[in-house]
Amino acid sequence: MITRAEQESARRRAVELLEQAGIVARQDELEGIEVADFGLGELEQSGAQILTLVDTEQVAAKVLVLFADQIEPEHTHPRLGDYPGKEETIRCEWGELYLYGPGEPTPNPKGHPPAHRRHTYTAWHEYVLRAGDQVTFPPNVPHWFQAGPEGAVFWSFSTKAVDVTDLFTNPDVRRETVVVD
Amino acid sequence: MITRAEQESARRRAVELLEQAGIVARQDELEGIEVADFGLGELEQSGAQILTLVDTEQVAAKVLVLFADQIEPEHTHPRLGDYPGKEETIRCEWGELYLYGPGEPTPNPKGHPPAHRRHTYTAWHEYVLRAGDQVTFPPNVPHWFQAGPEGAVFWSFSTKAVDVTDLFTNPDVRRETVVVD
Repeated sequence: MITRAEQESARRRAVELLEQAGIVARQDELEGIEVADFGLGELEQSGAQILTLVDTEQVAAKVLVLFADQIEPEHTHPRLGDYPGKEETIRCEWGELYLYGPGEPTPNPKGHPPAHRRHTYTAWHEYVLRAGDQVTFPPNVPHWFQAGPEGAVFWSFSTKAVDVTDLFTNPDVRRETVVVD
Repeated sequence: MITRAEQESARRRAVELLEQAGIVARQDELEGIEVADFGLGELEQSGAQILTLVDTEQVAAKVLVLFADQIEPEHTHPRLGDYPGKEETIRCEWGELYLYGPGEPTPNPKGHPPAHRRHTYTAWHEYVLRAGDQVTFPPNVPHWFQAGPEGAVFWSFSTKAVDVTDLFTNPDVRRETVVVD
């Protein structure tokens, strides 16, 4: 749960980082930036700001903003009937992004989830992405990301996005953010 | 057919416009920019410069550069077996783009194909796109685009791209560019 004031403040900070990164977006798109706290009530640690540019039945193009050290918690994009699940390419536009997926765990990873959440992070193969670097994940693999010390702005290019059906490793996550006045 | 020198020159000019537009790309991506003359041998009039960022079996994200008044000729993305054909969202990043698709022909359109090619353009419903404006075309509909007087830089976000199977209205088009030394 976040307050309307927290939502507005996070949106403003996201718009500043998007401008710094040179992302081109219309005013109505910027006003629609999603501020997600994943129901954990600790937006600065676990959260994401999401600008949606394309969202059709086939394709999505979104720009995500993470503040310094902010984490989008570990999740997968599961199969939904005939749809095999979301394939997603993460491409860094600005700042530094620590991205984790399946594979050999990286020793001394840069990512550092809050200690009391650490058991809800299982993927520890690290990719350090800077401007122009990208990684593609097939559907249904666990992954998560954390911004570096300046924050990060990155693209998500994917097949159809059905965010509310993402499966989070942490059972406390609620993907739909509750905003209160 | 274009010469190696024409290809290199077009690539350099495209990189300049991409920088002006604030597109973030790696050096190896910029060196791979496709210069397409569509086999018409009149690159300044009929051509496109294409930077591919994502190109998977499911999704493509490309950035197209058109020089002043340059046209990508009319084409469709046809069905291929089980694949219904490419759905494509065109989103302007920089400059002005005149985009044409199915629908009521627009009186006094800004687009102006070379007179001797005019009969190979059948779609005349006009969209004038500036930074942040976008249009999505379903598969298998004719469309073409021309840059305004300063050129244009725009995104193509789509399902799987199979460029060589695009169907062009002009039977003289050859999608694969021949480059000679």
